[in-house]
Amino acid sequence: MKGSEMDFAKRAHDHNYRMDPIVRSRLDSDAYKLFMGATIHEKHPMTQVVFQLTNRTKDVRLADHIHVDELREQLDHAQTLRYTPSEIIHLRGQSYYGHTGLFKDGYIDRVAASRLPDYEVSVNEETGQFDLRSGGAWMDAKEWEIHYLSIVNELYTRSQLRQLSRAQMDIMYARAKVRLYAKLERIVREAPELTISEFGTRRRHSFLWQRWVIETMKDVLGRQFVGTSNMLHAKELEVDVKGTIAHEMSMVYAALAAPDGPQAIRDSQYRMLQDVQSVLPEDLRIFLPDTFGTTQFLENAPTWLQWWKGFRPDSKESVEAAEEAIGFWRRMGQDPKKKLLILSDGLDVDLPGEPGNGADMIAIHKAIGGRTIDTYGWGTNASNGFRGTVPGRPDLMRPISIVAKAVEA
Amino acid sequence: MKGSEMDFAKRAHDHNYRMDPIVRSRLDSDAYKLFMGATIHEKHPMTQVVFQLTNRTKDVRLADHIHVDELREQLDHAQTLRYTPSEIIHLRGQSYYGHTGLFKDGYIDRVAASRLPDYEVSVNEETGQFDLRSGGAWMDAKEWEIHYLSIVNELYTRSQLRQLSRAQMDIMYARAKVRLYAKLERIVREAPELTISEFGTRRRHSFLWQRWVIETMKDVLGRQFVGTSNMLHAKELEVDVKGTIAHEMSMVYAALAAPDGPQAIRDSQYRMLQDVQSVLPEDLRIFLPDTFGTTQFLENAPTWLQWWKGFRPDSKESVEAAEEAIGFWRRMGQDPKKKLLILSDGLDVDLPGEPGNGADMIAIHKAIGGRTIDTYGWGTNASNGFRGTVPGRPDLMRPISIVAKAVEA
Repeated sequence: MKGSEMDFAKRAHDHNYRMDPIVRSRLDSDAYKLFMGATIHEKHPMTQVVFQLTNRTKDVRLADHIHVDELREQLDHAQTLRYTPSEIIHLRGQSYYGHTGLFKDGYIDRVAASRLPDYEVSVNEETGQFDLRSGGAWMDAKEWEIHYLSIVNELYTRSQLRQLSRAQMDIMYARAKVRLYAKLERIVREAPELTISEFGTRRRHSFLWQRWVIETMKDVLGRQFVGTSNMLHAKELEVDVKGTIAHEMSMVYAALAAPDGPQAIRDSQYRMLQDVQSVLPEDLRIFLPDTFGTTQFLENAPTWLQWWKGFRPDSKESVEAAEEAIGFWRRMGQDPKKKLLILSDGLDVDLPGEPGNGADMIAIHKAIGGRTIDTYGWGTNASNGFRGTVPGRPDLMRPISIVAKAVEA
Repeated sequence: MKGSEMDFAKRAHDHNYRMDPIVRSRLDSDAYKLFMGATIHEKHPMTQVVFQLTNRTKDVRLADHIHVDELREQLDHAQTLRYTPSEIIHLRGQSYYGHTGLFKDGYIDRVAASRLPDYEVSVNEETGQFDLRSGGAWMDAKEWEIHYLSIVNELYTRSQLRQLSRAQMDIMYARAKVRLYAKLERIVREAPELTISEFGTRRRHSFLWQRWVIETMKDVLGRQFVGTSNMLHAKELEVDVKGTIAHEMSMVYAALAAPDGPQAIRDSQYRMLQDVQSVLPEDLRIFLPDTFGTTQFLENAPTWLQWWKGFRPDSKESVEAAEEAIGFWRRMGQDPKKKLLILSDGLDVDLPGEPGNGADMIAIHKAIGGRTIDTYGWGTNASNGFRGTVPGRPDLMRPISIVAKAVEA
């Protein structure tokens, strides 16, 4: 059933009387895991890592909202999932940024064989948070990240929905739809050349809501909508899949270099990019400059980095990050107009009568003003844009900021 | 299935491949037909009348939107309907304005035996309108009025929906929900003593939408929501049924008096009320003053009319009508604070950022300021409040003004 045909409120209601699996396919994850995996498989096939969940929204005591058994039930279900033969065929046959045959057979075979390693979960009674972690081969353990996030987010969503009447839910979904639509219409009207991808898997309200968001973006934005990071939605909704590499790569490389001292750690970020460069074609060579601070990263950047296709700042105000990227390319003698800048940090679209969040995509796009090829990854505020939509309960449906990071390697 | 559990857009989509009956029960009509019927049965059991459809929105050529066969199919289906035994039990057992046993057994037996008389329909090629009419015993023929209106309105709705994409429909319904909800919230916030009934059957977008509207009014307005005119929704949603008498009564009485000249016509409006008074208890004695103009009606009103419980102006600006009602009661030595004023003419609730229609219930209520017991019947703008909700198609979903009147008696 297509997302847009769902009655979200009814569906949410149904959650309250039976197990409704949140993750139903290994493809329900972000493509950057697949892209990073190619390098990991080639360069670090035996590296062991531990991923751990952290809730940065400390005032939300997750264990007060989600029963640990409910969490276990979902994690156990996810752990039963394998890539199906047709999913593997899809990964192999799919084109990524126009490239087919991107991955070597050995890598795809390894993906097909992967399983989610065992996890440990307990409740920290003092903080009210879950201690949730999973260790194993980097290739396998990294897959938990997105599933941890989508499971915990959707269980949290359900816990909030249980506090709502049927009518409150109904209006909540109607308001969220109207709001998203108004934002998309504003983009089409005011910035008809701005291109957007959907990056919301990790913070989504629910699987089905994300699906509706993607369908609606596709419908309203037309050619301005260039893809989603979610491999399952991309496959089922016939849209391009998008992704780069993530902080995870630099962090694990740094952890592995740590025994060799500070200089080795600093060098590790470039060695990681060198490894990626030897595995991924140019169109997928997008670097994140800011795992340990953008300024030091760019100052010490090796010459060859100028040839990379693009730059994805992820922890800095977007216009400031854009200026840094443009400055870097100019210093290197590159034409920024031929380079790609992917912005995705807390973006939104302001609407009249609603408080903006200071990261209006349209304003950022206008500030960049064509000096480079800017494109936008829209996350939480699309896939979880419910703040203030519940009649009489402005406290509900605030997205929480959870992450799952490699904490040991 | 409850209305609020419907996915309206999906449902609308489904209409395009099979016959989906619009009228599914004889109870899906307005209660004033039942109340008027008591007098008609007693005083005019043999009177023959003809009801005819008129579309006052002449620039909408209905026959260009609705195929006459589609119309026939729905009318034929409606004609097959009889009150079911349990519906008759319901009519008999139901309390109306706190009264049980309101109707004599003979009357309910006559209702149970009623069937919709044959109709004639053709297309006027010049005007693009349907010539749709039905003649028979007043008791039976009058029942077509509401069914004509709900069938033609919903077929028109469907013709508009066929022009929409799935996403346009989805947003249209979301916007209409958000808008209605905002109006209800404004009532609760700004006029917590204002009472409202739902009167939208005759102009509704669709049966299911009306149902959603009633459920939502019940949920948001709580005790401020006092009922609906629709007998089926009232029964299924456990709300009170509301109704008075309509212009129809005065018009048929006037037509019957016409052969006796102008004075007989003028007198007929009071004779009609006298007949009603002999059949209905005080709580249902609400007069419409304006079939042939309020001023002449009140000037010549018989003394006993002062004892009637209330007054329902229906073709005059509401505050002006309220002043006339209050003036009438004062002249008669009655305390207007003990009288009921039912307002229902094109009412709406203004919202910030939307053009008002000049009939804001809250403003009217404040202007009346407690000088009489005012209560509000909300029709078209609740049950068909879709104007401007379709993305990119502001021309669609304007409600049309159709009526079905007794044209011969």
